[in-house]
Amino acid sequence: MGLTIGVDVGGTKVAAGVVDEHGRIIEKLKRFTPAASPDDTIGVIAGAVTELLARYDVEAVGIGAAGFVDETRSTVLFAPNLAWRDQPVKKQVEERIGRPVIVENDANAAAWAETKLGAARGERDVVMITVGTGIGAGVVVDGRLYRGRWGSAGEPGHYRVVPDGRICGCGNRGCWEQYASGSALVAEAREYARRSPGAAVRLLQLGGGSPERIDGPAVTRAAREGDSGALECFDIVGRWLGTGLADLAAILDPGCFVIGGGVSEAGDLLLRPARAAFEGGLTGRFHRHFADIRLAELGPEAGLIGASDLARDGL
Amino acid sequence: MGLTIGVDVGGTKVAAGVVDEHGRIIEKLKRFTPAASPDDTIGVIAGAVTELLARYDVEAVGIGAAGFVDETRSTVLFAPNLAWRDQPVKKQVEERIGRPVIVENDANAAAWAETKLGAARGERDVVMITVGTGIGAGVVVDGRLYRGRWGSAGEPGHYRVVPDGRICGCGNRGCWEQYASGSALVAEAREYARRSPGAAVRLLQLGGGSPERIDGPAVTRAAREGDSGALECFDIVGRWLGTGLADLAAILDPGCFVIGGGVSEAGDLLLRPARAAFEGGLTGRFHRHFADIRLAELGPEAGLIGASDLARDGL
Repeated sequence: MGLTIGVDVGGTKVAAGVVDEHGRIIEKLKRFTPAASPDDTIGVIAGAVTELLARYDVEAVGIGAAGFVDETRSTVLFAPNLAWRDQPVKKQVEERIGRPVIVENDANAAAWAETKLGAARGERDVVMITVGTGIGAGVVVDGRLYRGRWGSAGEPGHYRVVPDGRICGCGNRGCWEQYASGSALVAEAREYARRSPGAAVRLLQLGGGSPERIDGPAVTRAAREGDSGALECFDIVGRWLGTGLADLAAILDPGCFVIGGGVSEAGDLLLRPARAAFEGGLTGRFHRHFADIRLAELGPEAGLIGASDLARDGL
Repeated sequence: MGLTIGVDVGGTKVAAGVVDEHGRIIEKLKRFTPAASPDDTIGVIAGAVTELLARYDVEAVGIGAAGFVDETRSTVLFAPNLAWRDQPVKKQVEERIGRPVIVENDANAAAWAETKLGAARGERDVVMITVGTGIGAGVVVDGRLYRGRWGSAGEPGHYRVVPDGRICGCGNRGCWEQYASGSALVAEAREYARRSPGAAVRLLQLGGGSPERIDGPAVTRAAREGDSGALECFDIVGRWLGTGLADLAAILDPGCFVIGGGVSEAGDLLLRPARAAFEGGLTGRFHRHFADIRLAELGPEAGLIGASDLARDGL
């Protein structure tokens, strides 16, 4: 098998990379996403791929995008950051580039990459959770990416952890991603700084004096320095993460969880409280195995690599 | 293919039936379960099977039991109502009967039967929820029973729907089965009768004058007669059921849900509020399909039939 292209379509940037069968990225391009125009976004994707096709012999293209993708991997039903609504992405890109295209949810693509080439190599039942601004996820069952009947499986970021809880962008209340994401981490830190400015001196310093300017890297940095308030923010968010993993294990009993996304760069600051909550909360915990909870290995390019590999599988 | 035997091991009764390849039960025996003695329970199972073997040419035996079963379908790790702890059921029964045995969680077996022969025939991605005293469940993925890495998948009755919520027999708090089960229905009705005895006249009448003697059939009967308090109890429990189905759809996106168990005999009294809560609560509901929510078709013998069929598949 030869080369394929993986494309990661985000709300601000499109990344397209030529990838070999071992998951190595040979060349990568980046473009700004004209997110307000659904068709211009298609044009930018096709343009980047066409530029790579001029230099490499490529067999297929996989596109990963944050949104609901239909069960035929052709149409993006809804992508909150891209203005895509029932957008026939496969058809539109194939017409422009003359190669087979598959479309996949970006977190599904990342889960596939981590299972095949990353932290969960050798496992057959895997749940990957991408902890970033929100929570993305992908589920691998018996060695295959599980997409569900209509392609929308793997969205635990929107299962309800608190009745009448915090409002979510999806329109519901109490979704997991409102409690266990980077946004939740930052919201905890800002609230702490507003309520206890005397104790939150270091966090406020890193935020330039304003609670509203404290960001995720600032919380991580303060926590690494041992700041107790920042550590408490990680404990709160980590416990919500671990409790959710226990819920997912009750339903799916995977061999391992892979934790990726920007917040996972904090490593044990996040994973230590998550593991404690998971092991203390898993139903039947005195009579069963604990799934391993591992950090992702492939970094922010997991989605691109996974999409390229799924395109290869589709041939 | 010939005949197999399915065994349903409950806390009070053991049912063993000879089943043909179409899922028809040819003969069935019932025995009391000596639940306090793990080995006597094995003896009763083997005895019932041996009696049937004397009359039928049977190739294999499937045993369904309420509890955690290991990934090799051999050992019951923990069965709350049977005193089984790490019980090597497969080996012990095989030694006594001389036929291949598989062991399966009872709700998994029921889900398999409903998918292959019952309400979900033709579907490949199915979640069955058994609403009885507690909540059992089974997950079918891509046409196969999904058991997870260590055999414990399909226990959403113990995912947490309310932080610090009602205490559960599993040792945790806030488990779904404390809100969406027959026990929850009865608890609502009793509480209502205690607080509003004047309004709960009919429920109290059916309970012989005592809130503590109101049972599930009484609540169903009163609701069928149009009693507003009993209908409200079904609405509360049905909404918890539907909200949980929405959470499961966010994670698994199945083609349909099958609702079985004793409480499902109330039919639309339970399913109407469940469907309303599901459709009103599903994340991304304006951009995706709704899974069908159907009543089970095979009744209380689904577990026995499913276990017999899984034994056939195992050959």
